[in-house]
Amino acid sequence: MTHPPLRIAIAGLGTVGAEVARQLTEHRDLIAARAGRAVEVVAVSARDRAKDRGVDLSGAAWAQDPVALATMDGVELVVELMGGAQGPARALVEGALQNGRPVVTANKALLAEHGAALARAAEASGAALGWEAAVAGGIPVVQTLREGLAANRVSSIAGILNGTCNYILTRMEAEGAGFADVLKDAQDLGYAEADPSFDVGGVDAGHKLALLAALGFGVAPDTGALPITGIESVTAADIAFAGELGYAVRLLGLAEHGDGGLSGGVEPCLVPRGHALAGPQGPDNAVSIAADPVGRVLLVGPGAGAGPTASAVLSDIVAAARGCAPAAVFGVPAQALKPGPWADPGATVAPFYLRLSVTDAPGVIAAVAAALAGDGISIDSFLQHGRDPGGAVAVVLTTHEAPRAAVTRACAAIAALPTVREAPQVLRILAGA
Amino acid sequence: MTHPPLRIAIAGLGTVGAEVARQLTEHRDLIAARAGRAVEVVAVSARDRAKDRGVDLSGAAWAQDPVALATMDGVELVVELMGGAQGPARALVEGALQNGRPVVTANKALLAEHGAALARAAEASGAALGWEAAVAGGIPVVQTLREGLAANRVSSIAGILNGTCNYILTRMEAEGAGFADVLKDAQDLGYAEADPSFDVGGVDAGHKLALLAALGFGVAPDTGALPITGIESVTAADIAFAGELGYAVRLLGLAEHGDGGLSGGVEPCLVPRGHALAGPQGPDNAVSIAADPVGRVLLVGPGAGAGPTASAVLSDIVAAARGCAPAAVFGVPAQALKPGPWADPGATVAPFYLRLSVTDAPGVIAAVAAALAGDGISIDSFLQHGRDPGGAVAVVLTTHEAPRAAVTRACAAIAALPTVREAPQVLRILAGA
Repeated sequence: MTHPPLRIAIAGLGTVGAEVARQLTEHRDLIAARAGRAVEVVAVSARDRAKDRGVDLSGAAWAQDPVALATMDGVELVVELMGGAQGPARALVEGALQNGRPVVTANKALLAEHGAALARAAEASGAALGWEAAVAGGIPVVQTLREGLAANRVSSIAGILNGTCNYILTRMEAEGAGFADVLKDAQDLGYAEADPSFDVGGVDAGHKLALLAALGFGVAPDTGALPITGIESVTAADIAFAGELGYAVRLLGLAEHGDGGLSGGVEPCLVPRGHALAGPQGPDNAVSIAADPVGRVLLVGPGAGAGPTASAVLSDIVAAARGCAPAAVFGVPAQALKPGPWADPGATVAPFYLRLSVTDAPGVIAAVAAALAGDGISIDSFLQHGRDPGGAVAVVLTTHEAPRAAVTRACAAIAALPTVREAPQVLRILAGA
Repeated sequence: MTHPPLRIAIAGLGTVGAEVARQLTEHRDLIAARAGRAVEVVAVSARDRAKDRGVDLSGAAWAQDPVALATMDGVELVVELMGGAQGPARALVEGALQNGRPVVTANKALLAEHGAALARAAEASGAALGWEAAVAGGIPVVQTLREGLAANRVSSIAGILNGTCNYILTRMEAEGAGFADVLKDAQDLGYAEADPSFDVGGVDAGHKLALLAALGFGVAPDTGALPITGIESVTAADIAFAGELGYAVRLLGLAEHGDGGLSGGVEPCLVPRGHALAGPQGPDNAVSIAADPVGRVLLVGPGAGAGPTASAVLSDIVAAARGCAPAAVFGVPAQALKPGPWADPGATVAPFYLRLSVTDAPGVIAAVAAALAGDGISIDSFLQHGRDPGGAVAVVLTTHEAPRAAVTRACAAIAALPTVREAPQVLRILAGA
């Protein structure tokens, strides 16, 4: 049986959009075999029409206004790769879905902020909304959660969701270098944006975690409510001390769903060496999913870049071409999505790592230990190197499991001690598998 | 919109079949939400009707002959969990597909031996044949290769595909124990069968590798042609020496596809510590896929057991319930499957590990080195512990990259040396990522 080709439009011809177009040519036969029909780019839209993108798109119609692709005749599916939670990207995706036209997008910000509304629009018109590329680049984690583990009750999701942060942290670890130096280098190499705050501040990982939590737990994505801490405060000393204690520092997105709703968030954590989430180096992402009845599944792969992202975009295009009944955008009907406020991070019970800068004088450790004991926190291990009588020395403590709020309180008391020179650094330690 | 429930039959109510039935009850609402409709077990077949399986199947029709489920009225999908490459399992699957009835199976032997014929039968009638559970238990690797990486050209697949072997090897590593002792213990604990040859001999991993190669490279599964070596000859000494050299010993399935067709096979390999395939412990499986444009993706998870296998079976049931157009069984149309003879393992070029038992006397190493040099093989490292003048000592060598045939030839010459006491142990070293 021969089906007519699927005619698609691509909005946004940056590195990802151009790569998608290129792969559709280069892997044309493979894609046709997998999809059961050819896929043809019939229309495109981008800022600069004249730019050489290494792929011949002369046969495709050019839309000056990308939003026009939502309704342009002859287009059967819209690929949105412009980015941005507002503006033309949002207008195009909304317009296409309202028009019953399936959409494939890599736009995590759009989905994290307007996901529930877009899911309703997709369901109302029966159009698919594919977003595999929005989370963890080339790793098929959306499909895994929604389809591969379709019958599982997910209990937790933990992941390395931002390749820029993982690149920076693993390079700091390998080289003993400081955050600012490695960030500068990452920018020069193209691993970090000129304005890195979106990545290193944890916002990008937050968007992705909100989307994975939606898929895993059936809650509406709600990035605003998600506790987010970036990696800007992680120092070379933290990474060295963590290493000495048997841990790697990683920016993790963590989500659990219990009786009290969602808990977790994005924050730099100490991950035990040997733990699966301590392994991935450089710009790789990783997602560990605990679920019943499967147990625990781990996915690792490239979290960003033109090739991996194009791979994910193309998988959604192939699924649409195959003519699957559209999956619910977040795995369950939009009206079944529950509100997902995230628990107060102060309620998190975990072991913590504390790094203090103290005056090297008798009685300092006793005072710090007393402050911790006053909040019911017991010390697991203690580390100090070198002596500098009267000068500043770094002291590192790890605690047994304690509520974060108690640790925060104790740290305020510690910071007020005359022998403590600055507010303590506090990092969560990942316990368990 | 409310769709009528999907009515399924389950043939085989062992641990996996019973778990599938139990999950269909316990996760009924979740499954209905994901599938867009309920899933109902309307018929079952098993050896013992009276056995208590912890799940109420009294509402389901009982088929004395499982093959009757292929045509029984009111059944819309058949789940085959009896196992076996011949007999009723084969007759049921063939019969159902010929009857246009979709099938979900965990039967790797059936697929590895008759996969191409079954794919043709499925296509001829338009019925889906889901086999996610046949490879790597709960890890959604079939879906990942066929759908998540649909537009990728796969260049290599490497995996830990047998949980029993990984359990044995990682326990030998952790405890310094011998193969026979750990195997005995694994049998007592239920991690190994009473007749373990299918697992420890590498046949089970071979079936799975043949299936992954079919999916990744579009070649008809052909287990008979696949080079297979089990782990029976791996000793505690090998694991200790490998550890000292920075390697873990793992039973790997390896497949690459180049101009000369398929190469690779199943064999115990030395895997560099820190490599993703050295990490998984106990009965976990892992699959590493290199593909263009995605790069490299790694999946890790439980490779066997009732829960993980049921998770995979249920994902195929949900996909069928959602009403996807059936994917081609091996990702491409059955008539497009190429013949897949595997290359002569002698042609494999890799570094190798050699363990010799030699008489502790002057000139032995010189003779061994000369034998290797005679076949153009250069030594990378050399290890010997202890002295026992005139007695037997173990000597370990690693080579630079060399054709396996040359190493085999050199080892025959080495075995013939009067100072060498037994045929050398030869293990491939996994090079690269």
